[in-house]
Amino acid sequence: MSAAGPPQGARPPGGERREAPIGGDHTSPQAAIGDALAKRARAIRLLTCDVDGVLTDGRLYYGDDGTEMKVFSSLDGVGIKMLAKAGITIAWITGSNAPSVAHRARALGVARIVQGAMDKLTPWDALRSELGLPPAACAHIGDDLPDLPILTRCGLGVSVPHAPAPVRDRAHYVTLREGGAGAVREVCELILVAQDALAPQLAAFGA
Amino acid sequence: MSAAGPPQGARPPGGERREAPIGGDHTSPQAAIGDALAKRARAIRLLTCDVDGVLTDGRLYYGDDGTEMKVFSSLDGVGIKMLAKAGITIAWITGSNAPSVAHRARALGVARIVQGAMDKLTPWDALRSELGLPPAACAHIGDDLPDLPILTRCGLGVSVPHAPAPVRDRAHYVTLREGGAGAVREVCELILVAQDALAPQLAAFGA
Amino acid sequence: MSAAGPPQGARPPGGERREAPIGGDHTSPQAAIGDALAKRARAIRLLTCDVDGVLTDGRLYYGDDGTEMKVFSSLDGVGIKMLAKAGITIAWITGSNAPSVAHRARALGVARIVQGAMDKLTPWDALRSELGLPPAACAHIGDDLPDLPILTRCGLGVSVPHAPAPVRDRAHYVTLREGGAGAVREVCELILVAQDALAPQLAAFGA
Amino acid sequence: MSAAGPPQGARPPGGERREAPIGGDHTSPQAAIGDALAKRARAIRLLTCDVDGVLTDGRLYYGDDGTEMKVFSSLDGVGIKMLAKAGITIAWITGSNAPSVAHRARALGVARIVQGAMDKLTPWDALRSELGLPPAACAHIGDDLPDLPILTRCGLGVSVPHAPAPVRDRAHYVTLREGGAGAVREVCELILVAQDALAPQLAAFGA
Repeated sequence: MSAAGPPQGARPPGGERREAPIGGDHTSPQAAIGDALAKRARAIRLLTCDVDGVLTDGRLYYGDDGTEMKVFSSLDGVGIKMLAKAGITIAWITGSNAPSVAHRARALGVARIVQGAMDKLTPWDALRSELGLPPAACAHIGDDLPDLPILTRCGLGVSVPHAPAPVRDRAHYVTLREGGAGAVREVCELILVAQDALAPQLAAFGA
Repeated sequence: MSAAGPPQGARPPGGERREAPIGGDHTSPQAAIGDALAKRARAIRLLTCDVDGVLTDGRLYYGDDGTEMKVFSSLDGVGIKMLAKAGITIAWITGSNAPSVAHRARALGVARIVQGAMDKLTPWDALRSELGLPPAACAHIGDDLPDLPILTRCGLGVSVPHAPAPVRDRAHYVTLREGGAGAVREVCELILVAQDALAPQLAAFGA
Repeated sequence: MSAAGPPQGARPPGGERREAPIGGDHTSPQAAIGDALAKRARAIRLLTCDVDGVLTDGRLYYGDDGTEMKVFSSLDGVGIKMLAKAGITIAWITGSNAPSVAHRARALGVARIVQGAMDKLTPWDALRSELGLPPAACAHIGDDLPDLPILTRCGLGVSVPHAPAPVRDRAHYVTLREGGAGAVREVCELILVAQDALAPQLAAFGA
Repeated sequence: MSAAGPPQGARPPGGERREAPIGGDHTSPQAAIGDALAKRARAIRLLTCDVDGVLTDGRLYYGDDGTEMKVFSSLDGVGIKMLAKAGITIAWITGSNAPSVAHRARALGVARIVQGAMDKLTPWDALRSELGLPPAACAHIGDDLPDLPILTRCGLGVSVPHAPAPVRDRAHYVTLREGGAGAVREVCELILVAQDALAPQLAAFGA
């Protein structure tokens, strides 16, 4: 608050903070994350994301004309751009097949997207092989059973809160924010903090 | 977690879990459901679903050009496919009349849909008759008064939380998740667990 | 539950019931409402509804092509049809001007809609005069300051929860459900119950 | 309640009021706000708003045809019109670039919009210079890191609840309502109340 002095009257909102447990606000770079989790996050060079329920809230908008809409989050967009700037590769792997996904990927500069993947493991292995990365260098965030084959093999498996128990139980981390409402941003910050790569980007914004 | 070892740092999210009462997480196949409810679910060979408020959250999107959109859930989609794979017939019976419903049904392989049904009982009886099923082999999930004639006759009547009291009071089970946010998935899993048909499908995903 | 016996295993959902205070579930016809409120509701022959924030949740969907979408509730649709069947006139009075409103009104058989009404009092007075109704026979549900002139004159003034304090403070009743999520249905049932007109309609559905 | 007498049976809704802490209902003009905050708000002649996550809830609707939708709030619309009537200039500064934003701005009579602003500080300085306003006469509401350069320089920096911690921590005020659900309305009322400009407008509505 250079010109205007220190904030006065600032206060936390009365609502919408239920997701932040005491002492564990994930949006603070300095927030403590477990040592084991930080170690996993430090090794990550590739983040793969499921789309429906992860980059979106899982809602599928169907129009009378047969076209679909999907709803993405602006918070995730900023997070994905920061992660890419830090040199991490981002790819999207989804079982669905919708032109809207390609439009959103293009807007964010995400070059690698795999759609219509009933079996997600094969494209994931191909991607790792192309990039020369072991499973331990790969993070994946998913929300349903088709994500399990990757989640149980990668170095950092992440679930969103609404995922069924078999998915949540196998994840190394369950996000505080829901899919389509900042879950991917949260993973991006988790990785950036573990790699000491968030502070420099915050500084560029004057923070 | 074969390659990466057991999950470390995994934890439940701080929010969005209000719907899961202690000891009653419906997403766990091993979750205890009442004996009477399990017995009802074991007998089911047909699941009929209302659309607005059940497969959607009841929101009707109207555009300036007179077309409509409806919003479905990706969680429900996976559940419906699993239920079909287990040999249960799925049908949708709705009072509304919108092309978007047919588009979504086609995407999921749901062949039987009845639209514009002011009276839902007649098509339900016709469907049961065609399939040779007694009421006890039929489950129905609905959210409003037009669903009552089926709900009060079928073997397993299910309501969503937002339904008016006369509907909730007559249901054998009220879902934890809301319509359009996994309510149908919850019923699919309830039936699959009761019929010992969920575990094999989870195993196929590596769970 | 004629064929299948009394419901077993029925239980209230774990979530989404926060809006229902103990002993005050508005969805039960038998729920106690105050004597003064019931007296007001018994006299109603006309219900006027604001649109944005009342029949919708106040969200205005803008597309790149300049067209808009508005989102209505299937619960409200059933309520409006029941109220009309009981002989109450329904009209919509809104300051906005969107073709989608006319499409939704037509789908529900609501013949009287006034759009682009910066001043809502004049069309309300004209409507009352045409129908020969005193203010005490009129209910209005609104969510913002432009609704105040009607709310402070009609026999039953209703606000939704998200309305600013000057609106809520002047309402005879603040709905439990939000605009676009059943608020209008709640008012319809309130009026129908007060006029002993809900039970017969429930009976027609087998309840 | 001139004609109908004082409200009877009015009561607060059972839900949706979590955001209003006891004694701090922001929607009441008479609600106490801190002296320091009121002093800041009294000096404001310009309010700049971020779009995604502030005027909307941050959701980006992508269609199959590559077009987008954004969702604005009717509550904010009334607030922006009241603020303009009180002589405060409103401008929107956003990093995104979508025709829908221009459509919404036109509907509200907001003449100054800056889109595609990767760097928000330069257009903000240009706007201040054109209007001859020092930073202390400027308020800004934002939800993410690109808003920090303005937030840390303006006289009244406002964050929404979902913003990351570095943004919330530097704001003079964090709104109770979320972006796209009345956050901007809340800021408009905060400024109007501090400048004794809300009561006359309420009076015009009969409040």
